[in-house]
Amino acid sequence: MSYSFSDQTTLSQELESLLRKLHSQVGNAITDDKYILFGAGSTQLLNAAVHALSHLNSSFPASAVASIPYYALYQMQTEFFDSADCSFQGDPARWKNATNTTGDIIEFVTAPNNPNGQLNEAILHGPNVKTIHDRAYYWPHFTGIPSPADEDLTIFTISKLTGHAGSRFGWAFIRNEEVYQRMNTFLQLNTMGVSRDTQLRAMKLLKVIIEDGGREIFEFGYKTMTKRWDRLRKTLSMSNRFSLQKVAPENCTYFQKVREPTPAYAWVKCEREEDKNCIEILNAAKILGRGGSVFHDDDRYARLSLIRSDDDFDMLISRLESLVSKEDGAKIM
Amino acid sequence: MSYSFSDQTTLSQELESLLRKLHSQVGNAITDDKYILFGAGSTQLLNAAVHALSHLNSSFPASAVASIPYYALYQMQTEFFDSADCSFQGDPARWKNATNTTGDIIEFVTAPNNPNGQLNEAILHGPNVKTIHDRAYYWPHFTGIPSPADEDLTIFTISKLTGHAGSRFGWAFIRNEEVYQRMNTFLQLNTMGVSRDTQLRAMKLLKVIIEDGGREIFEFGYKTMTKRWDRLRKTLSMSNRFSLQKVAPENCTYFQKVREPTPAYAWVKCEREEDKNCIEILNAAKILGRGGSVFHDDDRYARLSLIRSDDDFDMLISRLESLVSKEDGAKIM
Repeated sequence: MSYSFSDQTTLSQELESLLRKLHSQVGNAITDDKYILFGAGSTQLLNAAVHALSHLNSSFPASAVASIPYYALYQMQTEFFDSADCSFQGDPARWKNATNTTGDIIEFVTAPNNPNGQLNEAILHGPNVKTIHDRAYYWPHFTGIPSPADEDLTIFTISKLTGHAGSRFGWAFIRNEEVYQRMNTFLQLNTMGVSRDTQLRAMKLLKVIIEDGGREIFEFGYKTMTKRWDRLRKTLSMSNRFSLQKVAPENCTYFQKVREPTPAYAWVKCEREEDKNCIEILNAAKILGRGGSVFHDDDRYARLSLIRSDDDFDMLISRLESLVSKEDGAKIM
Repeated sequence: MSYSFSDQTTLSQELESLLRKLHSQVGNAITDDKYILFGAGSTQLLNAAVHALSHLNSSFPASAVASIPYYALYQMQTEFFDSADCSFQGDPARWKNATNTTGDIIEFVTAPNNPNGQLNEAILHGPNVKTIHDRAYYWPHFTGIPSPADEDLTIFTISKLTGHAGSRFGWAFIRNEEVYQRMNTFLQLNTMGVSRDTQLRAMKLLKVIIEDGGREIFEFGYKTMTKRWDRLRKTLSMSNRFSLQKVAPENCTYFQKVREPTPAYAWVKCEREEDKNCIEILNAAKILGRGGSVFHDDDRYARLSLIRSDDDFDMLISRLESLVSKEDGAKIM
């Protein structure tokens, strides 16, 4: 098994065309006239993108930003790998009126957002702003698909499409040839492309999904997530202590209806003045999740995952019910 | 398929114990009391090692060196990813008597060496010298195994063990805990570990190899490489124009005999004064390989691969025979 395929690339062309076909069926990305690259999950592609976009126009170090709350990896990666070329600067809001900066600005835009499920849009615009669109969760089981993504640099991953996180497979669509070439050089020198075993696995999964236009997997996923959100909402509706994020309904061109979003994570807020550390309170009741500060937000928030096994989800609900039932003045006892 | 195994790591413990068992059977590495890490080929591990060893003791940028001729990736990776932390300085010979340097020195030691098959040893020694031992070719089909590698940081890859280069699987043994932790952080933030599909493939391959202590694969590999070297030597023995590298016989503790090495590559020298660019001359005769300058050596040398399909190897020999037969004063006509 050689390093490269017979066309001398490290990308399976068959897998590439399956990916383009899937996006066309789902309507969540326009892939025409865009380059494609594969990575070891979106993880490697995010890093390749930051590297490619730093020093693209300017010899000054770039600044990376992401709206709070944001996925911690953006900052950890940028600081670990790119400290000389790009500094992580937190929330973009404070840059909004900065008309003049010495270097490029790279904005991570995550839609739907991890952890809170919002369909984020870019905050910054201008000739020195480059945007990395992380679309890991932009699939019909998590959100309505109002329109296909059509951005300069968009990253997807199989881990949130089929759940095969361990396969480490992601892909990026890139409009600009120079950015594509720079990312490709990164990926070749970093790992010489993506494991062919992984590409084979992804190909087999995609073939099955595409057979019926994604109907079976997305309807199953949407139904499962809806049921879970219904149970979670019902449980927390009895509570005065914990509240859930509000995410606006979206038109879904895939399911052809307006639908309530069913994001991968609940972004829980502890409402009591004294509950300053929400995840500590949940942990004490054996409820696992991540604290708000992991996402550079207030620890009054915590992220709970709804993408887990049925048994684990049942356990989560039962422990939440028990916690809520102990509230003074809870709406049920 | 989750990001992690049930023990919360991204490494299969079963695969780890198979790797340790294989090295014990082959006698090519002492793995006791060493940490192990998996990477996307040796490629990713080499990069993780440079990153981990830079700024280990000193705040000054490190310098990386490798004896000429060397595998081009060392320099390309270091310059692409680590330019702020580590500068590539070429051959270590000129550092040999430099007793005082401001930063750490990282020496790549490749044994057997790519391209020339020599069992290189470290040139530099001292408290500020860190060594990365690239043992990709340290298997009984390529070289005698005089003694097990027992180094601070040793890297292996499946691509030169079974030929599964496309699977992108390598592993490293690391003595020092801090270096291990730093490499692990690199691998987690870079790709969140190695594809589980790849780990499954590696596990299946290793299970078969280990069943008979590696006899079948190494005897087949050694026999095949010996036949190919015999044919190549015979072909070039007729030539005054092209010569082959000399590699000393080594005792092989695995095959329990002294044996001629059968390296993966021939390092051909063009002997005529006017043949300054050896690969051009070979290319003109439709013989594919890589020029000496790819390995930062004289272009009077060229690397020809002996690890290819039988058909490709037959073609190589037939084209070499034809080229040699055209020599004025060739030993055959």
